[in-house]
Amino acid sequence: MVRMFRLLALVAFAASLSYAQPQGPPPVVSPEVHWNRSATLRIRAPLADEVLLAGSGRFEKQRPLEKGPEGVWAITTEGLPGGIYEYKFVVDGVPTMDPSNPQIKRWAGGSSNYFHIDGIAPQPWDLRNVAHGVVRIEHYVSSATNTVRRYRVYTPPDYDRTTRSYPVLYLLHGSGDSEQEWTEFGRAHLILDNLYDEGKIEPMVVVMPYGHLSAPPDRMDFVKPGTMDTFVADIVENVIPDVESKFRVLIDQRSRAVAGLSMGGLQTLALSTRYPDRFGWAGVFSAGVSNAEQSVPELMADAKRHDRLWNLFWIGCGRDDFLYESAQELDALLTKLGVEHEFVETAGGHDWPIWRDYLGRFTPLLFRE
Amino acid sequence: MVRMFRLLALVAFAASLSYAQPQGPPPVVSPEVHWNRSATLRIRAPLADEVLLAGSGRFEKQRPLEKGPEGVWAITTEGLPGGIYEYKFVVDGVPTMDPSNPQIKRWAGGSSNYFHIDGIAPQPWDLRNVAHGVVRIEHYVSSATNTVRRYRVYTPPDYDRTTRSYPVLYLLHGSGDSEQEWTEFGRAHLILDNLYDEGKIEPMVVVMPYGHLSAPPDRMDFVKPGTMDTFVADIVENVIPDVESKFRVLIDQRSRAVAGLSMGGLQTLALSTRYPDRFGWAGVFSAGVSNAEQSVPELMADAKRHDRLWNLFWIGCGRDDFLYESAQELDALLTKLGVEHEFVETAGGHDWPIWRDYLGRFTPLLFRE
Repeated sequence: MVRMFRLLALVAFAASLSYAQPQGPPPVVSPEVHWNRSATLRIRAPLADEVLLAGSGRFEKQRPLEKGPEGVWAITTEGLPGGIYEYKFVVDGVPTMDPSNPQIKRWAGGSSNYFHIDGIAPQPWDLRNVAHGVVRIEHYVSSATNTVRRYRVYTPPDYDRTTRSYPVLYLLHGSGDSEQEWTEFGRAHLILDNLYDEGKIEPMVVVMPYGHLSAPPDRMDFVKPGTMDTFVADIVENVIPDVESKFRVLIDQRSRAVAGLSMGGLQTLALSTRYPDRFGWAGVFSAGVSNAEQSVPELMADAKRHDRLWNLFWIGCGRDDFLYESAQELDALLTKLGVEHEFVETAGGHDWPIWRDYLGRFTPLLFRE
Repeated sequence: MVRMFRLLALVAFAASLSYAQPQGPPPVVSPEVHWNRSATLRIRAPLADEVLLAGSGRFEKQRPLEKGPEGVWAITTEGLPGGIYEYKFVVDGVPTMDPSNPQIKRWAGGSSNYFHIDGIAPQPWDLRNVAHGVVRIEHYVSSATNTVRRYRVYTPPDYDRTTRSYPVLYLLHGSGDSEQEWTEFGRAHLILDNLYDEGKIEPMVVVMPYGHLSAPPDRMDFVKPGTMDTFVADIVENVIPDVESKFRVLIDQRSRAVAGLSMGGLQTLALSTRYPDRFGWAGVFSAGVSNAEQSVPELMADAKRHDRLWNLFWIGCGRDDFLYESAQELDALLTKLGVEHEFVETAGGHDWPIWRDYLGRFTPLLFRE
């Protein structure tokens, strides 16, 4: 009797687990990563005429899948370098997430699936058996937006075992992303844990605010008039005071940094140039001179009037990035104005593998004399 | 010149935001929630012969979308009660996520999109301007699985401002989910913030461990032989000691509760019956007598030998749940064995609206004399 119950419930569970899958055929396995670091991606679409693999970086040029038995289309990639790969399918013209892969990168402009390929050597974002910091989800009331908003905070491994105060990096996401992406997808916390374990960074608190004014993100809200002013007000008047009331962080200019990618790079430009007395370090990842609200030359000229300029103004951009020229112009502008800065050009485009890399290049430079 | 840069970069941003969308046509808006609490869902699929709306609960019976101009299919629902609605499309037989909606519920058995409908009255899971607790992402080394694993911890609003110790609820997710779902999708932290604000619960720490042994979750790993033993060992030997070393929690039986949904309900049965001396309160949501490892009657009989049984053994199940009979059997078994318990039957199926509701019913009963 007991055994029968057991069996019944298992069958019922198995049935529920296949809900919304076509009845009958076995589940499709996708992605399947092979010993030689290639991956097979599959989708069942018996009625489709064409299925393409789409994505960013290596998968930017779409590739056709081949139709096999039982209407399952498949493609096997070449062997891939260790890293993260975003993809989706295009089934008869419809962008289609991989129904078999729960690994999803949410994005307001169209979400994707992803998979990891292990490197030959350990990767900077690997989950290792080292001392781990903590990621905290915090709420605060924003007077700038008149709403309750969220940010995430990474505290370094020893934070809860000491009474000391730490320098703080404000780390901003891109358009269409949220305050989750630097950790959920960028693995910022694991990268910092590993760098700290290797003695390569000063221990620091990292604050990851939400960069849009609306939720769910309006895809273009950052180009609307007034948006940058409201965002800057939210950070300066709400986020920073809230952080400084809840966390043991140092509050002097040389202990406060700001960095961001893409839209977050523009926000970094705005924050660092309007408040050079508050941010001693700035990192602009994959963005350039453009600024929806105010011109960068004017802001830079204003900033230069302050006694205290940045200990580091760091710009990184990939040579295949559509904003590469804009980043080059920023580099030229800073040179012309005599503002000390670093401009790092790398391979790659406007994409997450680069931003993981830049975080690992930028943070070791922070909070040193 | 500066204006030109500005314009250029905006155009480039706009272009990048539409990556992986078909060129040309305007973006599709979906979901669109209307004043009368109906929602319109849309997808562009010009070549499709049939597009269906699929989901759980109200959308369990699939509904056809209608094809409109420019190949955009649409459906408008009836006015809906306040709550959360999961859905996806089925395009010519292929389960297809809504490409326009970044709100995604990840699940190893097939992810879905979702949207919220505001209630006429405030809902228990609304983000309100009340004192908020913190959700923390913690790592630990598991000797049971020999891997580094994660759990999430909710600390109540005053946790960081007091030195007192709190009772603790271990809250377990369902099969195919992860340690994220109770907060990301279930909004457990907001439900608890609101209940606390209304004076309806004792302040408590809530620990949300990861319930699968593999990552990404093997859809059926919980029915494999030995899985439950390993999971129980991980909780008792690794998670609980780790929590008790990092958080100010009370460690006596009447200050420790366990609850879970579906697979997490089975895990709750295993933990509470094997360790009645450690868990003073148990909540089984949408699960029943079945247990992949050991029979519930035997476990219950074993448990009854302990001096200290549960202050509360709570079972909740929806009448449309495929495990409803299994939950009824558990109720009958406990009655037969003379174990005091509560059995709550509700409307609904094996679905998240019910689990949000059960959390709000169960937690006010905890840690009272």
